[in-house]
Amino acid sequence: MWGGRFGEGPAKIMEEINASIEIDKRLAAQDLRASRAHVEMLAAQKIVSQADAEAILRGLDDIETEIADGRFEFRRELEDIHLNIESRLAELIGPAAGRLHTARSRNDQVATDFRLWVREACARADALLLELQRALLAQAETHADTIMPGFTHLQPAQPVTFGHHCLAYVEMFARDRGRFADAATRMDESPLGAAALAGTPFPIDRERMAKALGFARPMRNSLDAVASRDFALEYLAAAAICSINLSRLAEEIVLWCSPAFGFVKFSDAFTTGSSIMPQKRNPDAAELVRGKTGRILGSFVMLASVLKGLALAYAKDLQEDKPAVFEAADALELSLAAMAGMMTDLQPQAEAMRKAAAAGHPTATDLADWLVAKLGKPFREAHHIAGAVVKRADELNLPLDKVPLQEMQTIEPKMTADVFPVLSVEASVNSRASYGGTAPAQVRRQIAFWREQLT
Amino acid sequence: MWGGRFGEGPAKIMEEINASIEIDKRLAAQDLRASRAHVEMLAAQKIVSQADAEAILRGLDDIETEIADGRFEFRRELEDIHLNIESRLAELIGPAAGRLHTARSRNDQVATDFRLWVREACARADALLLELQRALLAQAETHADTIMPGFTHLQPAQPVTFGHHCLAYVEMFARDRGRFADAATRMDESPLGAAALAGTPFPIDRERMAKALGFARPMRNSLDAVASRDFALEYLAAAAICSINLSRLAEEIVLWCSPAFGFVKFSDAFTTGSSIMPQKRNPDAAELVRGKTGRILGSFVMLASVLKGLALAYAKDLQEDKPAVFEAADALELSLAAMAGMMTDLQPQAEAMRKAAAAGHPTATDLADWLVAKLGKPFREAHHIAGAVVKRADELNLPLDKVPLQEMQTIEPKMTADVFPVLSVEASVNSRASYGGTAPAQVRRQIAFWREQLT
Amino acid sequence: MWGGRFGEGPAKIMEEINASIEIDKRLAAQDLRASRAHVEMLAAQKIVSQADAEAILRGLDDIETEIADGRFEFRRELEDIHLNIESRLAELIGPAAGRLHTARSRNDQVATDFRLWVREACARADALLLELQRALLAQAETHADTIMPGFTHLQPAQPVTFGHHCLAYVEMFARDRGRFADAATRMDESPLGAAALAGTPFPIDRERMAKALGFARPMRNSLDAVASRDFALEYLAAAAICSINLSRLAEEIVLWCSPAFGFVKFSDAFTTGSSIMPQKRNPDAAELVRGKTGRILGSFVMLASVLKGLALAYAKDLQEDKPAVFEAADALELSLAAMAGMMTDLQPQAEAMRKAAAAGHPTATDLADWLVAKLGKPFREAHHIAGAVVKRADELNLPLDKVPLQEMQTIEPKMTADVFPVLSVEASVNSRASYGGTAPAQVRRQIAFWREQLT
Amino acid sequence: MWGGRFGEGPAKIMEEINASIEIDKRLAAQDLRASRAHVEMLAAQKIVSQADAEAILRGLDDIETEIADGRFEFRRELEDIHLNIESRLAELIGPAAGRLHTARSRNDQVATDFRLWVREACARADALLLELQRALLAQAETHADTIMPGFTHLQPAQPVTFGHHCLAYVEMFARDRGRFADAATRMDESPLGAAALAGTPFPIDRERMAKALGFARPMRNSLDAVASRDFALEYLAAAAICSINLSRLAEEIVLWCSPAFGFVKFSDAFTTGSSIMPQKRNPDAAELVRGKTGRILGSFVMLASVLKGLALAYAKDLQEDKPAVFEAADALELSLAAMAGMMTDLQPQAEAMRKAAAAGHPTATDLADWLVAKLGKPFREAHHIAGAVVKRADELNLPLDKVPLQEMQTIEPKMTADVFPVLSVEASVNSRASYGGTAPAQVRRQIAFWREQLT
Repeated sequence: MWGGRFGEGPAKIMEEINASIEIDKRLAAQDLRASRAHVEMLAAQKIVSQADAEAILRGLDDIETEIADGRFEFRRELEDIHLNIESRLAELIGPAAGRLHTARSRNDQVATDFRLWVREACARADALLLELQRALLAQAETHADTIMPGFTHLQPAQPVTFGHHCLAYVEMFARDRGRFADAATRMDESPLGAAALAGTPFPIDRERMAKALGFARPMRNSLDAVASRDFALEYLAAAAICSINLSRLAEEIVLWCSPAFGFVKFSDAFTTGSSIMPQKRNPDAAELVRGKTGRILGSFVMLASVLKGLALAYAKDLQEDKPAVFEAADALELSLAAMAGMMTDLQPQAEAMRKAAAAGHPTATDLADWLVAKLGKPFREAHHIAGAVVKRADELNLPLDKVPLQEMQTIEPKMTADVFPVLSVEASVNSRASYGGTAPAQVRRQIAFWREQLT
Repeated sequence: MWGGRFGEGPAKIMEEINASIEIDKRLAAQDLRASRAHVEMLAAQKIVSQADAEAILRGLDDIETEIADGRFEFRRELEDIHLNIESRLAELIGPAAGRLHTARSRNDQVATDFRLWVREACARADALLLELQRALLAQAETHADTIMPGFTHLQPAQPVTFGHHCLAYVEMFARDRGRFADAATRMDESPLGAAALAGTPFPIDRERMAKALGFARPMRNSLDAVASRDFALEYLAAAAICSINLSRLAEEIVLWCSPAFGFVKFSDAFTTGSSIMPQKRNPDAAELVRGKTGRILGSFVMLASVLKGLALAYAKDLQEDKPAVFEAADALELSLAAMAGMMTDLQPQAEAMRKAAAAGHPTATDLADWLVAKLGKPFREAHHIAGAVVKRADELNLPLDKVPLQEMQTIEPKMTADVFPVLSVEASVNSRASYGGTAPAQVRRQIAFWREQLT
Repeated sequence: MWGGRFGEGPAKIMEEINASIEIDKRLAAQDLRASRAHVEMLAAQKIVSQADAEAILRGLDDIETEIADGRFEFRRELEDIHLNIESRLAELIGPAAGRLHTARSRNDQVATDFRLWVREACARADALLLELQRALLAQAETHADTIMPGFTHLQPAQPVTFGHHCLAYVEMFARDRGRFADAATRMDESPLGAAALAGTPFPIDRERMAKALGFARPMRNSLDAVASRDFALEYLAAAAICSINLSRLAEEIVLWCSPAFGFVKFSDAFTTGSSIMPQKRNPDAAELVRGKTGRILGSFVMLASVLKGLALAYAKDLQEDKPAVFEAADALELSLAAMAGMMTDLQPQAEAMRKAAAAGHPTATDLADWLVAKLGKPFREAHHIAGAVVKRADELNLPLDKVPLQEMQTIEPKMTADVFPVLSVEASVNSRASYGGTAPAQVRRQIAFWREQLT
Repeated sequence: MWGGRFGEGPAKIMEEINASIEIDKRLAAQDLRASRAHVEMLAAQKIVSQADAEAILRGLDDIETEIADGRFEFRRELEDIHLNIESRLAELIGPAAGRLHTARSRNDQVATDFRLWVREACARADALLLELQRALLAQAETHADTIMPGFTHLQPAQPVTFGHHCLAYVEMFARDRGRFADAATRMDESPLGAAALAGTPFPIDRERMAKALGFARPMRNSLDAVASRDFALEYLAAAAICSINLSRLAEEIVLWCSPAFGFVKFSDAFTTGSSIMPQKRNPDAAELVRGKTGRILGSFVMLASVLKGLALAYAKDLQEDKPAVFEAADALELSLAAMAGMMTDLQPQAEAMRKAAAAGHPTATDLADWLVAKLGKPFREAHHIAGAVVKRADELNLPLDKVPLQEMQTIEPKMTADVFPVLSVEASVNSRASYGGTAPAQVRRQIAFWREQLT
């Protein structure tokens, strides 16, 4: 009727667009867990008999085993994970299965299952970020004084150390962990017992169910409980920001691997080559991490668009919340694990870094600072003098610390030979000992801080 | 080492993040087609022997059959669809298989396969949009003079006809079809023969391959051929715009189905109910169509983010182009088919529409227009008078066309009984006979236009 | 050369694309504040003389006054707010002005200014959200037992109270406040002293500057300090999520204002009418709030795209961070204030709500629950019986609580007259007394909780 | 009442959120043009008198002059550009001004004004893209055989020419021009005469107005005319795709300017330096172009989100369409002009490019191709042999074309001295003479094609 794959008529299309089992079967473990908490509460509150509750619990155990063994048959005509499990339960234990759904609705059920899943995803992200931080910290420890160029505008600006650079990412990923932790805390409330949208007349004990599921408390408003997905959106926001931080490191790895830089190498484990071009050591994993940022940002936009302007309480649009989150979580977790692997495997090429750091008068700022500190020049004037010296160095084709003193003095007569010690790359790095600066002593101070935090 | 699913060490993660076969096996048909065009050209150009070419073609046929029969084993360690097929070819026909890859690279191969796929997706979208337009046109024909309220700000503004409303969407979807057609035309160039990025020394015939694949011509620049994905982004833009048009109709269906409006009903085929609440006829399909807009917009953002700032020519980030497009295409095609189904199934409730159209003095503008046309008032003054009459009608609790003439004359002495004929809802609709207006005669004129276009 | 507005040649275009003063002059107050903290520290550390510091401070005071008086001339050729102020300082106090920039760089300066601004934006959002919560709470108190339909799929599902509905949003906005608070805490670190990217050789006291600016501590890594904008992205994420919550309420207001629902009215202060259609009371403010969600989500995507794949440390792309945040903050603050105004002004129409709540057998679930609780039926069977009763009620054209008992008994013989008290809308609402349910007693319990929280 | 800037009470907020004059005053020229077309038609159709029409036209002329002279006072309490102009017209010519709004509404008026503006934006984008293509073509002509490395994964893969690389972008920008042209054609229909949403009873001539405004025809459906903004969304999609193409070139410029590559230099006109670091030649303009991609993509998401799920016909949310488009257009036009400036100013450093192209055995593929072509090896076997030769070259620390023949023969005995001519970088480039390949002869062929297209 409308051609192609939709030839089977309206009812078929309706089933096709409506079914979510291919997606939400990933909630099976959470659904079983929430059903157990629910039926145990129903029995404790004498809403169902102990015998029925036990039959239901045994049936849920059997289903769990069937799923684990790959014997459970997910059926699309049963639409979603909730009905698949409930229907199988009825096959296994008979009419008592029908008592499980007392005082609940698919609306609070799916909200609970999904919250459980997202809360676990926050914990997984945290664990993977911790591994990545540790890998970065290990590199920082080894390379606390390995000198490389610090870039602005991808132009060498001032020398820094590779350890210092690694610690910048340790900081970023610490904030990412904070965002996942805050999201997990904020979503740590149980929707279960909100029923369809208004609560239930049965004397349920929501507090008990919340505890059983490890939630801090039940949600205070039943409409909010079934209608809100901001917890999932917050997870996606944290994931998107984290993936952007990852993408920056990934971009740098791609640059550093390019022969133009040659700052790092990877073992074969993290390199894809070409059977014909052995010089090609492609940083595919870094490129994929960079690319997956698009997926995660796209997922945020996807769910944000779905939720925008949605009247309370439940609408079927919300079914789109799960692919958004599942796909983003898969991409993020893969990216974090791959990045931790890369940062462990990565071999900094100190010589290439050092050479790049020395090119192009990177200590010109040090000269200006010396003029301020020793000759009392206002900074703007010092800048001007240093610029003139750099220009003269270029004319003489000499590095700054080899420009003869008398050349300098034709520009600023008060200059003395005391200036030379500050003009080497090493001196420059060592001098930046302000808190948080790149001087190896400062870098080691921060390493000590992080070593304590990360163990 | 990094816990959980990534316990197997770096090489395992590298494989996991790198493999794309789960996604790109959807390109199998396109890959086989492009390989056939390639090897036939190689033979014609005497780059491979006729015998080798025939062996390769037979092998490709066998592989096609294996895939069709579900006997082909897709292997993740072979990374992608191209290597899976090439590797199976080698098993089937031996070393001659190695000649297939002469004068090509995975870079031009995947660009070609993907273009073929996206071009087909454009054609599928067009066909589905045509069906949807036809369903809308059929409703418009039946309801060319079924009166309903025209809304602004979701407030009834002026009466229109349901047929007129349906035709508004016929127009929108026509533009959507135009966008897919333009995209298909713009991408109708063959990348095949660009090789890795620079072309090839072999005397290939790109024109011939382009023709064999139904492309208008070969692409003019080999770097562009392997690096560009704007064709996929343009498809996603067209899909996103189309899905937004769909979401507007879906929103209206959800509103119209609500008892507050009660403007339309669906048969059971397009309604999900509730075993307990028979009054509930949930418009799930419309909500899902509305929700899937998020998916498609998210896919656009996903691919746009991936491409942003990517240096030429090929980078592995580009592997993320396919999930973005496949997921969006699935969502779009399902939405279009479901919407065509809904628009066919939909039963307008003329009485409820008519009643809503008459409430709230919807012909006040007609009164003002009469004052301009018959009494020569400037429009702004006419507006003012009509407002006063409406206010008086509210005080008297009467519809406009029942307000006594003398009441009107206390407001504007020159008014005459000639005004009454213009104040009925039917008169209002019939009067709007300007080109493109809602008068049934105008609506029928446009129906005739579209009937011709859509057959 | 490239026509139109770019006729003046390259240098002109360079200036035009480079200048940010039109945008970043909004950072003037923050820039002055950070400069004061910087120069006071320089003096305390004896890096500049007390006399120079005092001259600088006096100059900064003068500039502040000039800006407040509208006498300060912002000049595009001076590029940004930092150089505009520094240049004016030099005019006012002479060469000593050049000492202000000792031991700092525009890189840490702009990072500090911007953080100060975004931290304040978090506080403003919190204050506006609090006002909105109070307005919602006031409505909830007045309407704790005003009955309205609770919707799923925009179909009436079960009756709830308007107070309960308002409290759902109080909960959502509480989480929004939590997100802004968490963001503010996470960004509460001072970049000042990071200098260009590597720290500085001057013996600065970053702790002191951090304190002076009200930051909890200095940032631990100078590269991170100048390169990171995740604080701004987190603000935008919180703003986007908040705006989506706002858009849901805005959508409901638009629906409720439509005569089809007629659930609420606004005074003239929040209505735009039409001089001719007095029935038209357009909820423009709600529509604008809904529309501005697009702006804020767009800003998140904007900054996320800018940051993606940006190598450390500073790149000029970062200049785009400020329009993203300023525009989103303006849209959010306007939306929050408008929504608080609307929620204060809004007049629920209890009669229309009550009437809509009673239509369509909304207590069918109550009947099913009674069958479970009183007759011990499994829920699934109870659902089935209730469905049959509802069908019979429709045939008899009666509301559920008017169906004769014998009619019910033909469906389920064990039913008794005890069922009738549960079938009224009021009984339904009162019965849903589970924690967080819609029973007025529960609603009042939550009102009491929030009254304490919000004062 | 809600603190801070919103202290003045509801009415004030309502005005603040409602007013759009600060944004839409950019439509003044279009509004005047559409009003002229409208009133001339009204007079021709005798709906207004010739005298009134002339008075109105004179008044509109006066207003145009006032705006041009900066004497026109835009007033926020008059909300938008339409009411500002109409109100001023009344001041200038008295009550006849009230006749201008006969048979039209702000709904069709703003749709018309905005379409006119967006259609012009398409033309501006096209003109700027043409200039950019010309600048690229000029570079391609000068550097048709300047050898540089062709990259995949940012690793040198095979040598190409800079001219070839430039032409890749000429192709991309040609497709961008096609997208703007298609969008302009699709939007080339006049909404004027649709009135509020339903057409008008006045005997207007929409065809005449369409012609007067340079539109191909009037829109066929009045609801579609006032409700649709897909034309603006399509413009934004084209702009977003174009900006992504720009961002790729911008990224390359940033890379090429880095001393690590050193492939290009700019004159001072396109470089920002630092007074102290003369080696720093920051490619700020390229970074800004790259950053502005975020703005444009954000604008697309903004408008897409606004339109999603919006019921017909007009809703106030649509007011957000204009900032989205204006901001994106500004960003795009600035980026295009800056990029054209950069591409004209850019000085390729042929020596650095050539040196980078020769490093790392970039002709290994040529060796493999030779083995296929001359020795009849299957490509996969040829790959394997070439890999072994490359490995041996690395051990001997020799470029491929200096590896002694006997060394090669220990790997593949059939090799002959004929292989050497294909192993130089120049030979490699020259050999890739397949259509669209990088051989200078091919590049010149495409230059000739484009020279004809672009003049």
